[in-house]
Amino acid sequence: MRLPLLAAVCCALLASAARPHCAAAAKARHFKWEISNMFWSPDCEEKVVIGINGQFPGPTIRARAGDTIHVELKNALHTEGVVIHWHGIRQIGTPWMDGTAAISQCAINPEETFTYRFVVDKPGTYFYHGHYGMQRAAGLYGSLIVDVAEGEEEPFKYDGELNLLLSDWYHESIHTQMVALSSKPLRWIGEPQSLLINGRGQFNCSMAAAHTPGATQCAAVNRQCAPVVLPVQPNKTYRLRVASTTSLASLNLAIGNHKMTVVEADGNYVDPFAADDIDIYSGDSYSVLLTTDQDPSSNYWVSVGVRGRLPKTAPALAVLNYRPNRASKLPALAPPVTPAWDDYEHSKAFTFRIRARAGTPPPPATADRRIELLNTQNRMDGRTKWSINNVSMVLPATPYLGSLKLGLKSTLAAARPAETFSRGYDVRQPPANPNTTAGDNVYVLAYNTTVDVVLQNANALAHNVSEVHPWHLHGHDFWVLGYGEGPYRGDAADEARLNLRDPPLRNTAVIFPYGWTALRFVADNPGVWAFHCHIEPHLHMGMGVVFAEAVDRVGKVPKEAVSCGATASALMNGDHL
Amino acid sequence: MRLPLLAAVCCALLASAARPHCAAAAKARHFKWEISNMFWSPDCEEKVVIGINGQFPGPTIRARAGDTIHVELKNALHTEGVVIHWHGIRQIGTPWMDGTAAISQCAINPEETFTYRFVVDKPGTYFYHGHYGMQRAAGLYGSLIVDVAEGEEEPFKYDGELNLLLSDWYHESIHTQMVALSSKPLRWIGEPQSLLINGRGQFNCSMAAAHTPGATQCAAVNRQCAPVVLPVQPNKTYRLRVASTTSLASLNLAIGNHKMTVVEADGNYVDPFAADDIDIYSGDSYSVLLTTDQDPSSNYWVSVGVRGRLPKTAPALAVLNYRPNRASKLPALAPPVTPAWDDYEHSKAFTFRIRARAGTPPPPATADRRIELLNTQNRMDGRTKWSINNVSMVLPATPYLGSLKLGLKSTLAAARPAETFSRGYDVRQPPANPNTTAGDNVYVLAYNTTVDVVLQNANALAHNVSEVHPWHLHGHDFWVLGYGEGPYRGDAADEARLNLRDPPLRNTAVIFPYGWTALRFVADNPGVWAFHCHIEPHLHMGMGVVFAEAVDRVGKVPKEAVSCGATASALMNGDHL
Repeated sequence: MRLPLLAAVCCALLASAARPHCAAAAKARHFKWEISNMFWSPDCEEKVVIGINGQFPGPTIRARAGDTIHVELKNALHTEGVVIHWHGIRQIGTPWMDGTAAISQCAINPEETFTYRFVVDKPGTYFYHGHYGMQRAAGLYGSLIVDVAEGEEEPFKYDGELNLLLSDWYHESIHTQMVALSSKPLRWIGEPQSLLINGRGQFNCSMAAAHTPGATQCAAVNRQCAPVVLPVQPNKTYRLRVASTTSLASLNLAIGNHKMTVVEADGNYVDPFAADDIDIYSGDSYSVLLTTDQDPSSNYWVSVGVRGRLPKTAPALAVLNYRPNRASKLPALAPPVTPAWDDYEHSKAFTFRIRARAGTPPPPATADRRIELLNTQNRMDGRTKWSINNVSMVLPATPYLGSLKLGLKSTLAAARPAETFSRGYDVRQPPANPNTTAGDNVYVLAYNTTVDVVLQNANALAHNVSEVHPWHLHGHDFWVLGYGEGPYRGDAADEARLNLRDPPLRNTAVIFPYGWTALRFVADNPGVWAFHCHIEPHLHMGMGVVFAEAVDRVGKVPKEAVSCGATASALMNGDHL
Repeated sequence: MRLPLLAAVCCALLASAARPHCAAAAKARHFKWEISNMFWSPDCEEKVVIGINGQFPGPTIRARAGDTIHVELKNALHTEGVVIHWHGIRQIGTPWMDGTAAISQCAINPEETFTYRFVVDKPGTYFYHGHYGMQRAAGLYGSLIVDVAEGEEEPFKYDGELNLLLSDWYHESIHTQMVALSSKPLRWIGEPQSLLINGRGQFNCSMAAAHTPGATQCAAVNRQCAPVVLPVQPNKTYRLRVASTTSLASLNLAIGNHKMTVVEADGNYVDPFAADDIDIYSGDSYSVLLTTDQDPSSNYWVSVGVRGRLPKTAPALAVLNYRPNRASKLPALAPPVTPAWDDYEHSKAFTFRIRARAGTPPPPATADRRIELLNTQNRMDGRTKWSINNVSMVLPATPYLGSLKLGLKSTLAAARPAETFSRGYDVRQPPANPNTTAGDNVYVLAYNTTVDVVLQNANALAHNVSEVHPWHLHGHDFWVLGYGEGPYRGDAADEARLNLRDPPLRNTAVIFPYGWTALRFVADNPGVWAFHCHIEPHLHMGMGVVFAEAVDRVGKVPKEAVSCGATASALMNGDHL
């Protein structure tokens, strides 16, 4: 690896530490978006998607660290509100721009325009997506890529760049999905019909039918679902940016005959390591370096398959097209086979290898507070819910950022949610008492305190079922201190499992079946931040909490962000933000 | 007809004249509604409908004239706003309760509760429905029946009452329909899959298959789509209330071997007349008297078929069940055959027979203003639109009632819409220049002026096509002064066609193909009132105008009705309503 200029290293390190960015050449980048429903054929079957400016996926935002992004967003949906969350952007000082309906802002009404303005302070691979109802699953997403500031360099070298935004796709509309998930009894939405790469997939056929017994070769397809082609020159190194905005699926990506070197995770540099395949959970992003050192007379399959659930969805394929081969030249080799869906050892091996790159700020040595969150599947009034410490999150009509800032009465339930769960809870069994209640799940965090969160997985309602849940935190990166099997006890043995030396900084971390994951962050970013399972139906079913962090230190919230519900009433009656 | 008590007559007449009601025994009637999407099988195919309290259609509201209705409405949709319009209720003094999104109020956000409070001042057969996007077509409707005040009597006598709320039903979701209608080029939604009676229909089969060559007998069906049974005793007289909330279809209703006597239209008494069948356009309501004077050993079909468009939708059937016959006893006679869809002479003959009942207040002899509205189908930016005087209505983010009351700048376009159209316009041909523009179509009406509106029909974009459009006015009944063929010229011959003696009072009136219809009303109800084609896709495509009537005289608008967009901003900045 070439040694970058001292200034660049310095600046990159500063940025990765969330300190003031190197703003010398920072720019304002303006975008004008109109969000509407439109017909599209993501997997060659025509459905309705939520598009941006007539595109699906939405346009890629590309900026440099320190730039300010302005997105003037017009909601041209007919009857639905909308917001956009800038996944991985910490919104330091601008919590009202986080784009979480009912938490950081009011949903933008149809025909209204709202302008998002925020600084992308840190280089990395990010994305954006809808964060209201299940609109992300309707296709409301796109890439957000932040380069190092001008004159700086990444701490690794590459000749070219490729971008893969991964998602999954259901043929049922999100409206029907939301009704199904809220039904008594639950009607589970099942597995997605297709996996998409950059918004393109092929339903009910395979690009590589020759290698797949019984599969049908995909017919000539329309441009909207044409296979993605990644053109490369032989003997070069490419930075492959990969992010997953799936609704449900955990994914694994592999490239025929090629190794990858993982260098970035969630906008943070990691200690480089080689991998034959990488797991990508919903909410994750990675950069991997890929060297095109294989037989240049051939093309190669990029294969994306399902992990963690018995896959009923065919892998998505893209073509790594070694130029000057034609893109249409089918690879000689079969697509890489995705590891067995339930090979959790494989998943853990990959996840545990992710360590912070040297120079990443280490976590504080101790925490001021530990919040232990038990994840369980439960029942409530005949419905199925996901609960945290036996409370399933429901979101209010008025965003917390406004109502807490104004100190509105009855913003919060009388009692704060539990900080822990019973040490006697048997995580290996279905809940003894599956009945749950709904609540706000708002944890109030004091400024600059160091907070540990232990996410505890457990058995779902059915015997012998415990799923992977990728938890995503808004407003922060966290250090992933460690993972454990079975119940977390907080004893010396558990403490010994924690890595305080080189834990990676991330914004998304998984809990493995029956296991726990420990995270640490410093509550230094006043705001109201969602922390939730990034699986869209799980969040819809209540799998989340909210961190109300030093709300008294939040700056002047723009009225237009909280002009609804109780906040609007209070402001109309003369209250001031 | 039995002579009612003098007091009752007096009170009924007073009420029908929109003067203070006989409020001695008026009650407050409280309802608590939760609106949500849910699975339902209106025609035995399961789809998602918008239901109220888990019901489809919504619960029937029954009240007496003078009562105050309180509907505490919680929006439990996931991402969509909602409003309810009380169709036919004039909202005298309460224009903010009219339930038209973007006109009389802000759409109620998800998780918000809004309480409708209004007086039902006049007995009659009404209904309510969603008035945001195409939510009515998603099944958001129900009956609203107002009886005469206590101690009063209707001016006709009957032994029992039956209620038929008619609608049509599409298998595509309204979201998909709205996208289709807004597409470039237009994707027409086609004819409805089913007609529904009280929310029940049978898709792709016939209850009366024995009488219909090639038809399949409906299988045993679930309760949600079971045929409607109307139990009657022989030799009695029933008041059959009929209303249509169809999205598209114009309907005709007939009952095997039975004549009907029409006594009420849109909540106004009409001069009774007999009919073998009645036409019911979307937005219409009627009461007919039915005497069960046929062979009592048989049941009879009630048949509802399509008029005005080549019907691709099978008639809906209900059973008039002469007790003590079993309800399941199939009628011996075939269902009545709906008149040919394009037999407009039949339709006109029915419509022209509708005259005001003696005692109905007559219209003012002259008008202060005449607004002539040309209805055309046009193109705009590759889309298909309906335009009025060549402007297609678009609705704003902020409801007019709030923004006009506050006098907010740029609430209205610089120029007011045209009062008339070119006398040279050839209504028999497609538009010579089909290009149209979008606008607000807001007509400002001065208090207590008498306004004539002439609705002029024309040829659509395709040759030899001119459709029926039922226009519905909010906030008022109007006198239907007359109808004419071809272009309205406003000359002596046209004037001579006007009926100033006994024109019926209504809130909905049709224009026949290539013809015109003249209406008159007095602008004595301050408010902002929609006036539009009641065909849901046509309104979605811009076929409407807005009457801003003496807005300076509107009372104190509740903040919660206009807590969105520019009104909310103004109120938060210290403006007062």
